[in-house]
Amino acid sequence: MTTNQPAAPPAGPVLGVDVGGTLIKAAAVAADGEVVARLERPTPPARDPDTVLSAVGSVVETLRAQVPDRVEALGVAVPGIIDEARGVAVMAANLGWRDTPVADLLSAATGLPVALGHDVRAACVAEWRLGVAKGGSDVLLATLGTGIGAGVVSGGRLLVGSGYAGQLGHTVVDPDGQRCSCGQRGCLATIASATAVVRRYAERTGGAEHPDGTPALSARDVAQRARAGDPAAAAVWADAVGALGRSLAIAVTVFGSELVVLGGGLALAGDQLIGPVQDSLDEWLTFQRRPRVVRAAMGAESGVLGAALLGRAALEETPVT
Amino acid sequence: MTTNQPAAPPAGPVLGVDVGGTLIKAAAVAADGEVVARLERPTPPARDPDTVLSAVGSVVETLRAQVPDRVEALGVAVPGIIDEARGVAVMAANLGWRDTPVADLLSAATGLPVALGHDVRAACVAEWRLGVAKGGSDVLLATLGTGIGAGVVSGGRLLVGSGYAGQLGHTVVDPDGQRCSCGQRGCLATIASATAVVRRYAERTGGAEHPDGTPALSARDVAQRARAGDPAAAAVWADAVGALGRSLAIAVTVFGSELVVLGGGLALAGDQLIGPVQDSLDEWLTFQRRPRVVRAAMGAESGVLGAALLGRAALEETPVT
Repeated sequence: MTTNQPAAPPAGPVLGVDVGGTLIKAAAVAADGEVVARLERPTPPARDPDTVLSAVGSVVETLRAQVPDRVEALGVAVPGIIDEARGVAVMAANLGWRDTPVADLLSAATGLPVALGHDVRAACVAEWRLGVAKGGSDVLLATLGTGIGAGVVSGGRLLVGSGYAGQLGHTVVDPDGQRCSCGQRGCLATIASATAVVRRYAERTGGAEHPDGTPALSARDVAQRARAGDPAAAAVWADAVGALGRSLAIAVTVFGSELVVLGGGLALAGDQLIGPVQDSLDEWLTFQRRPRVVRAAMGAESGVLGAALLGRAALEETPVT
Repeated sequence: MTTNQPAAPPAGPVLGVDVGGTLIKAAAVAADGEVVARLERPTPPARDPDTVLSAVGSVVETLRAQVPDRVEALGVAVPGIIDEARGVAVMAANLGWRDTPVADLLSAATGLPVALGHDVRAACVAEWRLGVAKGGSDVLLATLGTGIGAGVVSGGRLLVGSGYAGQLGHTVVDPDGQRCSCGQRGCLATIASATAVVRRYAERTGGAEHPDGTPALSARDVAQRARAGDPAAAAVWADAVGALGRSLAIAVTVFGSELVVLGGGLALAGDQLIGPVQDSLDEWLTFQRRPRVVRAAMGAESGVLGAALLGRAALEETPVT
C-alpha cells in the first residue's frame, strides 16, 4: 500500500527573488510559510542578463549560507512578458532582456530547481494564497506603481496567456491622451500609475523635482495634497480614480471577478484610493458581478513571497497556474 | 491490473440542445462526433422555466426515439449568466429566468445526466475542440448577433468566472453613446451587434421595415450596401468595425489571446468583416500579442455541438472548464 503514496514534499526552505529595475529583493521561506531570512541588493546598472543573473546568483548563495536547512528550490519573479511554462523572459522591458531562458540559466548556476514567474502574477499568487484574496475563485490584483500590471485568477487558476495576459496598464482609456512608453496613446498607465500621478501633478504645477531631477513627491504626497484642497492635485487624483474605475469595469465585465485587489505605490493612499475606485467602478456596472475593491495586504514583499510560492509549487509538482 | 484501469467511456450518442430566444435547436451526436439526428422547434412564447424546459424535454424524447442507440447524456446551452458548475441559470436575460436549477430539473425530467452550459461558451468549446480554433491555448470567440458575447480559452481552459465571464458586448466603447438594454450607455453591443447594425442603418435612412415592423434588412444586407457605396451603410459598418477593433484590443491586452474567432450574424459578411477588424485591432496593439482574426467555422450549429461536447465531457468526468 505505501508504494502508492506520494513522497512527502521536501521540508526545507525555498528562496523567492523579485528582480526589479531598482532592487533585487529576496527571502528564504520555510515550508510553513515563515520568512526565515531576507536580503535586498541594488539591481546592477548594467542590465544584460549575464550581469543581473550573476547578481541574483550571488544573492541566492548569500541567503543559502544564512539558513541552516538545505534550500530546496528557487522562485524568481521578473517584470515583462514572462512565459512561466518555458521559464523564459520573452521581453523584460525595464531590463532589456529578450527571449532569455532565465530558469535554465539560474538552475545551471545554482544547482536548484528554478521556477520563473511574472512579478505581478507572483504578487497575485501571494495575495491569493496567503493574503487578502485567500481562497478566492475569481480575483483581479492590479499593481499601480511605475506602470500598471494585473494578475488574474479565474476559476481558481492563475491566467498566464503564454506570458501575455494581464497587461491592464496598456488598455486605452483616452485615445487622444498622452503618449505611453509602449507607443500607444492614453493607456491607463499614463493616467493612473504612481509614476503618472507624480508626473501629471508636476506638469500642472511647473515641476516639483529635487535638484538632481528626481521627483520630490510621491503619489502618496499628491494624494495628501488633494485631500488638503490643492486643486491641481485633486484634478490629477480624480483623473486617476476615474480611469481606474473605467478600465477595471471592462476587466470585471470580461473576467467576472468577485474581488479587486489594488497594490503598488498608489495604493499607499489607502482609503483615499479604495473608496473612490469602488464608487467609480460601481457606476460603470449594471448586471455584472460587483466585486469588492480592497487594498493589497502584503505591500512590497508580495513579489518575493509569490516567487517563493511558485518555487515550492514547482517542487511539489502542483503548479498554481 | 485491470481494476486500476478507468472504465471505457460510454459509447452511445449524447444530445446537445441550444435554447435561444426564438428557437430550440437540438442534435444527437455520436461518440465519434458525427451528428446522427437534428431537430428544431420554436421556443414557446411563454418563457417561464416550466414551459420552456417542458419543450426541451419533449425535444429530448423525440430525438431519443429517432436514434437507435441508448442516449448517454444531455448538454444544454442557455444565454445569460450561467453557472456551469452548479448547473444553474443565474439570469437568463431573454428568457426571464432567475436562479433556475436547469440541470437538476432536466435530469429529473429525462433521467439523463445533464450538463448546463452558456450558449456562447458552448459555441467556443465547439470551435476550440472541433473547429477553427482546434487545439488552441489562448482563444477568444465573439458572437455578433442579437447581442455580443465572448467565450474565452486561457491556457487551454475555458473561463467561466462563476458564470459572469465574457460579457464583451457590455464593455463600454462610447460613454455618451446610445442606451443599452443593460442600462449603461455606449456598450459595444449598441454599435457592433448584428441587431445594432440593422437598427443604426434604419435610423440613418428613415427605417427599412416590413409592414409588420420587423427589419427588412439583415446585417449582411447592410454590409452589402456598404460595399456597393451606400454612405449610410458604410458609416454604420465602419463604426461597428472600429468599435470591435477597440474592444477586442482591450480584451487581447488582458487575456493575451493568440486567436480571435468571430461568429454570429455579423460574421456572415465574411471578408468584409474579418479583414477590417484585423486591421482595426492591429492599430491598437503595440507590444501585445497580435492574434489572427478568423471567421467561425461552424455557423449556427456551434451552440448545439458545444452543448453536446459539454454533455459528453461531464459523462466522462473530464470537464473542459
